Amino acid sequence: MNAVTGFGRPEIVAPSRVESFIAAHDFDQPTLVLDVDAVERQFRALAAGLGRAHIHYAVKANPHVAIVERLVRLGSGFDAASRGEIELVLSQGADPAHVSFGNTIKKAADIRFAAQAGVTLFAADAEEELAKIATNAPGARVYIRVIVDNPEADWPLSRKFGCARDKALALLGLARDLGLVPFGLSFHVGSQTRQARMWTGTLDQVAAIWHEAREAGFDLQLLNIGGGFPAFYGEEIAHPTTYAAAVMDLITERFGDVPQIMAEPGRGLVAEAGAIAAEVLLTARKSDDDLHRWVYLDIGKFSGLAETIDEAIRYQFVTPRDGDTTGPCVLAGPSCDSADVLYEKRPIQLPLSLQAGDKVIIRNCGAYTSSYSSVGFNGFPPLATIVL
Amino acid sequence: MNAVTGFGRPEIVAPSRVESFIAAHDFDQPTLVLDVDAVERQFRALAAGLGRAHIHYAVKANPHVAIVERLVRLGSGFDAASRGEIELVLSQGADPAHVSFGNTIKKAADIRFAAQAGVTLFAADAEEELAKIATNAPGARVYIRVIVDNPEADWPLSRKFGCARDKALALLGLARDLGLVPFGLSFHVGSQTRQARMWTGTLDQVAAIWHEAREAGFDLQLLNIGGGFPAFYGEEIAHPTTYAAAVMDLITERFGDVPQIMAEPGRGLVAEAGAIAAEVLLTARKSDDDLHRWVYLDIGKFSGLAETIDEAIRYQFVTPRDGDTTGPCVLAGPSCDSADVLYEKRPIQLPLSLQAGDKVIIRNCGAYTSSYSSVGFNGFPPLATIVL
Repeated sequence: MNAVTGFGRPEIVAPSRVESFIAAHDFDQPTLVLDVDAVERQFRALAAGLGRAHIHYAVKANPHVAIVERLVRLGSGFDAASRGEIELVLSQGADPAHVSFGNTIKKAADIRFAAQAGVTLFAADAEEELAKIATNAPGARVYIRVIVDNPEADWPLSRKFGCARDKALALLGLARDLGLVPFGLSFHVGSQTRQARMWTGTLDQVAAIWHEAREAGFDLQLLNIGGGFPAFYGEEIAHPTTYAAAVMDLITERFGDVPQIMAEPGRGLVAEAGAIAAEVLLTARKSDDDLHRWVYLDIGKFSGLAETIDEAIRYQFVTPRDGDTTGPCVLAGPSCDSADVLYEKRPIQLPLSLQAGDKVIIRNCGAYTSSYSSVGFNGFPPLATIVL
Repeated sequence: MNAVTGFGRPEIVAPSRVESFIAAHDFDQPTLVLDVDAVERQFRALAAGLGRAHIHYAVKANPHVAIVERLVRLGSGFDAASRGEIELVLSQGADPAHVSFGNTIKKAADIRFAAQAGVTLFAADAEEELAKIATNAPGARVYIRVIVDNPEADWPLSRKFGCARDKALALLGLARDLGLVPFGLSFHVGSQTRQARMWTGTLDQVAAIWHEAREAGFDLQLLNIGGGFPAFYGEEIAHPTTYAAAVMDLITERFGDVPQIMAEPGRGLVAEAGAIAAEVLLTARKSDDDLHRWVYLDIGKFSGLAETIDEAIRYQFVTPRDGDTTGPCVLAGPSCDSADVLYEKRPIQLPLSLQAGDKVIIRNCGAYTSSYSSVGFNGFPPLATIVL
């Protein structure tokens, strides 16, 4: 047994402060419990490995005001996806000089708002976006996001963001022609890139564009290495300092002396700082000869666990019956929506003794949960949050 | 040209009242515009075809209070997915005797709440659920949801809901043993079942279980035929009265004289009563030799268009440039989330002249949009709603 009465999986890790809190309290509805001190520890650990690279927290991962406030105090920068996120971080005292508007898809009016608020750094990956920035934030610094392929990430990115190599130089030139400052390049290695060595292929591709651009006369100042820093979801990952230092070594090898480097951890900074208190609503077998048991929780795809789309992120579950015999279970949410199934193609192992009313802790849910929760699908309230 | 200045696709249909309203107004953010009179017309049209079957509106499709209030006045019943939906419909004057708690996955405390509020009809598909109902709503009427296969629906349901045939009779027996009233059966033919004849295979399977149960001595009173009533998303569907009457004919052929029939239209009642005002934020090509253009809207998968998951529901788009040359476009939402792509496997045809700032009307969005919108993912506000 470990320290949390009734909740045991001592073979994995000792329970965190949030897991102990969940085990010790009752909850009326699914609730995310956050430990902001854990965010601070992770920030310091990543910063130690990143060295001279400046952290711009990807606010979208978890925009809770307590996280933003703490990170402002720690001197973090912020990567904002929207006007709403810019307003949020500025309201907590962030310096607009340390805020980048990193969404490549921006409304013209929001670019204007950001520029008037003092934000001077914008992302772009298309001609039309540069034109909007030139009109609404004249003279701004822009970095061009490039597409790179990384089949090794747990959740490979689509081609939604970035432009191909042939276009990157053209866009830098267009930025200059429009009176903007062609300031650098950005990329994304892919969410949840579990090992530093998985960055190699991506960095090779970006470095080729970087050097080509400098040879073409662009005095690039900024390399924005994006996110991709992993959280623990059951598969081994390195300590954040070790991981970040290894990535920085790979960058130095390929890019040499880059004036400014920026990193945008989101998940890697906050995921492990939170856990969700959930409850089993029902267990069932569809037929007497079914191989799989169905387990229904009070939280699902539309109420906080959106990252289970395509079964991409596989959360870990702690139950008061861990240690009992397990079997393969299909896990589903509480709604009357047949798409609200969390894990079906790859069922998960859960105790066969699990039953309605049992509390379940969902580990490492600090990222991409609370703000993705729907406003009220099926009449369920949004995911609640408690900050320790 | 049709009547709406600048918006034309006269070959399809004349613009509805909501589309005319959207074309004539400006919107600061994505906005669902609802016409409650159109809901009333659709209710009357469906009711005319359903005859003696009683409509229980599936509130989850759109819980807007204006819709609930109008349907209460029209004498509709309600199918509720949660305590929140029960509270909503009762607050608008619904008679609890006409409210069914149709979610097969219920929290024990919510069953108790419903029973105390006067709800007497509950769904179940598992032993554990019947036990919860027996404890918290003793003596209640229950209907057993059965699984049926319907490969013909646009969005075939998973096995999330219902039990197999071998289990249905056992559950009716268990209900009786627990002091509940084994009142009937329910099923779901599959969302967006476009033609009445597609019900045939499903009805055959349910009728076999129905007659078997009656032969086994269960005096079943209620056949709940669920939803599946289609909305228009570009593929031809019958008039609602014709459709519903044809379904009722198929039922009479197979079930004979059933004491009570209940239908739970959601999408089929409200989808065509709403349209979304959206805006193009960006158009781009990732590379000069890319076949497809990317078009980014200010609304996406997490801000109202959740039913584009797996590209299941294919909405229709009206733009001010309809009539210009079209080309295949990948359509995506505004967020920094690579999963927020609406149509990529099957790109859609849009005018190649479309550009940032253009207003787009998304047709027939009255169902499964506003309440599925996230609370604030990426810092974007939830989908706004205007009722005409």
